[in-house]
Amino acid sequence: MRLTSFTDIGFRALMRLASAPERAFSTAEIADEFKLSRHHLAKSIAVLANAGMVESRRGGGGGVQLGRPADQIRLGDIVRILEEGQPLVECFSSGDGCTITPVCCLKHYLGDAEQAFLAALDQHTLADCTLTPLEAAR
Amino acid sequence: MRLTSFTDIGFRALMRLASAPERAFSTAEIADEFKLSRHHLAKSIAVLANAGMVESRRGGGGGVQLGRPADQIRLGDIVRILEEGQPLVECFSSGDGCTITPVCCLKHYLGDAEQAFLAALDQHTLADCTLTPLEAAR
Repeated sequence: MRLTSFTDIGFRALMRLASAPERAFSTAEIADEFKLSRHHLAKSIAVLANAGMVESRRGGGGGVQLGRPADQIRLGDIVRILEEGQPLVECFSSGDGCTITPVCCLKHYLGDAEQAFLAALDQHTLADCTLTPLEAAR
Repeated sequence: MRLTSFTDIGFRALMRLASAPERAFSTAEIADEFKLSRHHLAKSIAVLANAGMVESRRGGGGGVQLGRPADQIRLGDIVRILEEGQPLVECFSSGDGCTITPVCCLKHYLGDAEQAFLAALDQHTLADCTLTPLEAAR
């Protein structure tokens, strides 16, 4: 069972933003700190921004910051946003070619398991996994 | 969140085997029915055989059949076997290059969520999702 690297990167960025919610971070700064591709990071942040989890601040000292307090961002919701369009198995997608689907009971159990995964994450918020502030870590 | 196609294929094969536990199926027969690659199917079945979930019968009428009764095969165990070596995120693998890992609390929560996923599946066995016998479906 795998989450995409897209989601993994998004989590890292959110944890960094949560460490200093009052200030904005440039994508380049986060990418350099975590040794990530700026391009991939920017794509994850764009999806998070579209969902309101991150917002951009323009001008001098501009960059991105959390769109709402870290304790109001459930970990399950982060996965729901970043993994959207990633089917657990083939029959969870619109282009399902599985010949069993019409008579398959497994899909239901897999769906329940996916919900259990997300429910477990929903017990925690981004505030529970904030990173050490960048300045303190240096 | 995705399971590999390797796991997906293994599930389909097990559901077919469970529909007629007394007889053996050839890999070609299952692959043709489900329109799967024989090569990919054989690889999944080999892993299941190695774990004792499937066993081979030689000679005339030979092929593969369940290695133990379907009601003794938990769905979570099928995922554990077929997804072995598939890390949920980078830090679940031995080649972890994430710079946050030493101070990251998220890994623990993701691990709990993965366990919740498997525990939900463990509430059911292969006997709960046996396919209609092949003969009846024709």
